Amino acid sequence: MDTTPKGNRLHIALLGRTNVGKSSFLNLVVGQDIAITSSVAGTTTDVVEKAMELLPLGPVLFLDTAGLDDASELSALRLKKTEKIFDRADIALLVTEPDVWGTYEEEVLAEMDKRRVPVIVVVNKIDLHRPSDSFLQNLKAKVSHVIPVSSLDTAGRNAFLDTLKRRLLEAAPDDFVQPPSLVGDLLPPGGLAVLVVPIDLQAPRGRLILPQVQTIRDALDNDAAVLVVKERELPATLALLNRPPDIVICDSQVILKVSADVAPAIPLTTFSILFARQKGDLATAAEGVAYIENLQSGDKVLIAEACSHHPLEDDIGRVKIPRWLKQYAGGNIQTDISAGRDYPENLREYKLIIHCGACMLTRREMLGRQQQAREAEVPVTNYGLAISFTQGVVRRTLSPFPSALLAFDRKIKELHPP
Amino acid sequence: MDTTPKGNRLHIALLGRTNVGKSSFLNLVVGQDIAITSSVAGTTTDVVEKAMELLPLGPVLFLDTAGLDDASELSALRLKKTEKIFDRADIALLVTEPDVWGTYEEEVLAEMDKRRVPVIVVVNKIDLHRPSDSFLQNLKAKVSHVIPVSSLDTAGRNAFLDTLKRRLLEAAPDDFVQPPSLVGDLLPPGGLAVLVVPIDLQAPRGRLILPQVQTIRDALDNDAAVLVVKERELPATLALLNRPPDIVICDSQVILKVSADVAPAIPLTTFSILFARQKGDLATAAEGVAYIENLQSGDKVLIAEACSHHPLEDDIGRVKIPRWLKQYAGGNIQTDISAGRDYPENLREYKLIIHCGACMLTRREMLGRQQQAREAEVPVTNYGLAISFTQGVVRRTLSPFPSALLAFDRKIKELHPP
Repeated sequence: MDTTPKGNRLHIALLGRTNVGKSSFLNLVVGQDIAITSSVAGTTTDVVEKAMELLPLGPVLFLDTAGLDDASELSALRLKKTEKIFDRADIALLVTEPDVWGTYEEEVLAEMDKRRVPVIVVVNKIDLHRPSDSFLQNLKAKVSHVIPVSSLDTAGRNAFLDTLKRRLLEAAPDDFVQPPSLVGDLLPPGGLAVLVVPIDLQAPRGRLILPQVQTIRDALDNDAAVLVVKERELPATLALLNRPPDIVICDSQVILKVSADVAPAIPLTTFSILFARQKGDLATAAEGVAYIENLQSGDKVLIAEACSHHPLEDDIGRVKIPRWLKQYAGGNIQTDISAGRDYPENLREYKLIIHCGACMLTRREMLGRQQQAREAEVPVTNYGLAISFTQGVVRRTLSPFPSALLAFDRKIKELHPP
Repeated sequence: MDTTPKGNRLHIALLGRTNVGKSSFLNLVVGQDIAITSSVAGTTTDVVEKAMELLPLGPVLFLDTAGLDDASELSALRLKKTEKIFDRADIALLVTEPDVWGTYEEEVLAEMDKRRVPVIVVVNKIDLHRPSDSFLQNLKAKVSHVIPVSSLDTAGRNAFLDTLKRRLLEAAPDDFVQPPSLVGDLLPPGGLAVLVVPIDLQAPRGRLILPQVQTIRDALDNDAAVLVVKERELPATLALLNRPPDIVICDSQVILKVSADVAPAIPLTTFSILFARQKGDLATAAEGVAYIENLQSGDKVLIAEACSHHPLEDDIGRVKIPRWLKQYAGGNIQTDISAGRDYPENLREYKLIIHCGACMLTRREMLGRQQQAREAEVPVTNYGLAISFTQGVVRRTLSPFPSALLAFDRKIKELHPP
């Protein structure tokens, strides 16, 4: 099922002396809501690779150095073997325990520093003995990311994992939080995308809005062609083609008309959803949108805007979405607006967060906000998916993204068991 | 042949007392290189309309008030009749003669001022008696545009006409120097334009260059669809269509490949030519480009850049066009570069001006520069047409513009009589 190539996974080297509890730490990570998709011996018998999905980062590959580190120092021979792991790592997780820090740990730091690979230090076994303040202070002076944990503390497990994921997200190299292709990966070379662009007040005179331009360019960069048309001319224009297009992408505001004009077999989505995928984890947003189904009169929904200055989205966030939610739920849904980089203190009071398009946030920041919502146990979706959902076309507009559609269907089934 | 609707012509009211020589003045204007395309009685028998092409302004309509003005004052009845002309005028040409200025002229100024219509005063008959300095000074205090002339002075005719045309261009309301539609007028509603856009260094990462975006938008604004494709995918993409597109537009740098890939019956042009039409008179540039045919070793060509800061065009203006000119002429063509709002002093030394795309100039300014070249009797063309010409495809790329193509063919025939 998971076909992410190894090269696109974040490679996390798991390092540490034998007795620090590296195995129990990995079990803690793996044991949670994470499925190991493979666990095979690596190219050397000394490395075990564990591929998994680690939200919000996505696909990761743990490089477990079992058998390489059973000593307090790296000998020349062992260093040579370990170097293969050092060279492959995008991030190093160095596991140690309270008051244990010596030549081995210093050498790992030096080797990683040489390669400009960020290191996260996990201080394990804090249930057995509390690390001294001076130990932790010294450590934090050396390494930006230090997380104390007890691998045996089941109760604290979720909180630790949330912290670890956030640290991984913060430390991950830019490449791994780079946006995926906007639309190029949905098109075969020589393929054809149809873009339905309403020309309205939002469009500056004589221009197109930037998301439309970016989508055209991304298709061209992937050796596909793009047919751009207004919604009124769409049916006549589709009739000019002697085969169906590979995908149709339209503005959310015309999705109802367009979904009627485009044959069901043709993949259809909206610009908002393309950008939701680029600016965050689409499966998370797809799961989140399913919660609209459950909204009841009196429930509170947070409309979260990343910044306070995007008047064009005001109409969507402040007027249209609140109205559609009420219509859908058939009762009074209280919608609050929050603007800015932080969620409000009372985040846990909300049944759902509907996030803006995040045009002012980086993907790393938006993934962080999705993770924050997860930590507060509040589902999070975005404007684009909320519009598709309330218009009754979300399964259609998610259909080009099978894993997000699967996440949505699973969540709906979970919320409404048959 | 000329199908410009009356409403799109610059309406010029020709006013003046009978004896000031209004008829001989109009004959002077008409007698030159201007073809009267119609001369019919107007909606009232008191107005004669004369439609003509007046470069660089384009189509104009003279409203000749013959029979209305045979008096030194406007009576109430006659004013009422003349008001119809006042109301229709975009510019007024008020003809008078040295030291003749009275109630009639003042009333015309007042009526035109009320309507915010600019007035150009032509002081005729200066061959008969020189206007006094005080007369001219008083006049210039009242009116911004004053031109002394002798309608009988054949030798000074061209210089006068050049002055008149420049004054008309300066005084014309913005609407009449507004750019024509980029491509919309070349497309039927429901039509299809194919845009061939090479993705190269010029294109900013993740975007399209502005001329491409503007062309897409203009087609959409005219209810047409746009198929955007890279040059490599063009043949396969054309094969997706079950009828030929209405026009293909490509970047000048790929015109040779594209003209081979597009069936001869399909109209084909370049972005440069669309913008040359928008930023100036295309027929003038089409006539100008014909002079490349005549270039001989030792001839001087001026590469004129409107501003000094467009590094991306440097390669075209400073390297490619000079090289292609030498190849075409088969000898040494001296190309000088001039940058800035004014041509160099020695303009008349050049056999041809090849102007940049004028992205930093308004249409009024570019029309003015074409007129300046005309006054110096130096043909003027632009980068886009020069590229098409030296690549041997200029008749093809002018084919969507019949009047420009006709101007080109006539000039070629004139330069090379059979």
